[in-house]
Amino acid sequence: MSFFPSALDDLVEKFASLPGVGLKSAQRLAFHILSLSEAEAKSFADAILAAKANVHTCPICQNLTDEDECPICRSDSREDGVVCVVASPKDVAAIERAREYNGKYHVLHGVISPLNRVGPDDIKIRELVDRVAQGGIREVIMAMNPDTEGETTAKYISRLIKPFGVKVTRLAYGIPVGASLEFADDATLMRALEGRQEI
Amino acid sequence: MSFFPSALDDLVEKFASLPGVGLKSAQRLAFHILSLSEAEAKSFADAILAAKANVHTCPICQNLTDEDECPICRSDSREDGVVCVVASPKDVAAIERAREYNGKYHVLHGVISPLNRVGPDDIKIRELVDRVAQGGIREVIMAMNPDTEGETTAKYISRLIKPFGVKVTRLAYGIPVGASLEFADDATLMRALEGRQEI
Repeated sequence: MSFFPSALDDLVEKFASLPGVGLKSAQRLAFHILSLSEAEAKSFADAILAAKANVHTCPICQNLTDEDECPICRSDSREDGVVCVVASPKDVAAIERAREYNGKYHVLHGVISPLNRVGPDDIKIRELVDRVAQGGIREVIMAMNPDTEGETTAKYISRLIKPFGVKVTRLAYGIPVGASLEFADDATLMRALEGRQEI
Repeated sequence: MSFFPSALDDLVEKFASLPGVGLKSAQRLAFHILSLSEAEAKSFADAILAAKANVHTCPICQNLTDEDECPICRSDSREDGVVCVVASPKDVAAIERAREYNGKYHVLHGVISPLNRVGPDDIKIRELVDRVAQGGIREVIMAMNPDTEGETTAKYISRLIKPFGVKVTRLAYGIPVGASLEFADDATLMRALEGRQEI
């Protein structure tokens, strides 16, 4: 039983339905909304509606966009022949921040994960295969997280697209820049040794 | 610089403006909103607008309500002569949960806190004094948090309302039920000794 007005209870419930938000936090957030001005609260509600109404996936790379095609797919200055495959739009943002990559992307919106009941048909693998089948792509870079699910997904996709004659690569594994050897885990050290390069 | 569509950026920014929500959490929450159905997102936005539009303070006790007067002030079965003064609507909810108190409330919406630039006029003290001045109240229970600001506020209010001949009390300090003496802090133990009762 609650001792708040029902409109406040409803809002607390909405916030509590968000991932990682417990009941106490949801209460704090709902009280914060009440402390906003009418206009600020409206602009919050509008931001939810606008994001939902305007943001959709790019028909080419499946990244999130509010235009017909995303700016990266539309760009003439980026290499068409190289496609970097990532699990989520956040990974595109991370790679773009590094300012090193100048090709295109493909966003899978997930990785193959039998434990979470995510199969190959639940993520955007078919769209990638179709892109590769259309030709013009010479290299596909797998940039999934270096965990079991990421590697399984990379191997699965690699088997599907290699027949089209594209080069399939993956991000280098190794010691993170600025990290200390002493604290690197065994798996990372092993990968770093395997991938050692001549200097 | 961001690499998300602007409608998504706007939503991330809104979430990040909430108390205790950092940029990464705000991104997670915004992505969750995108994963909702159109109807679910609309119902979230509507909950914000409804809470803001319908929830206001009760003209008598200043607690939050979505009716003209709150159910506790309206209730005939609750004692009119006893008023429990709390800092926030959450404290009303806490005391109601204990199912022990059968009087009315007064919600201050804050405590006096010079460090945070909250003076007596910034919280609902005048409204309480007016209630007491109208007569019919024989006891006012101070139920602020047992910290410096809570005690200062209680003392300040107490000085204002005692001239009207009301009894002013405060919640008992002591060992929390179920706690262990061994781990009680010195201040609590001291208060518990001071307030010892005959059995």
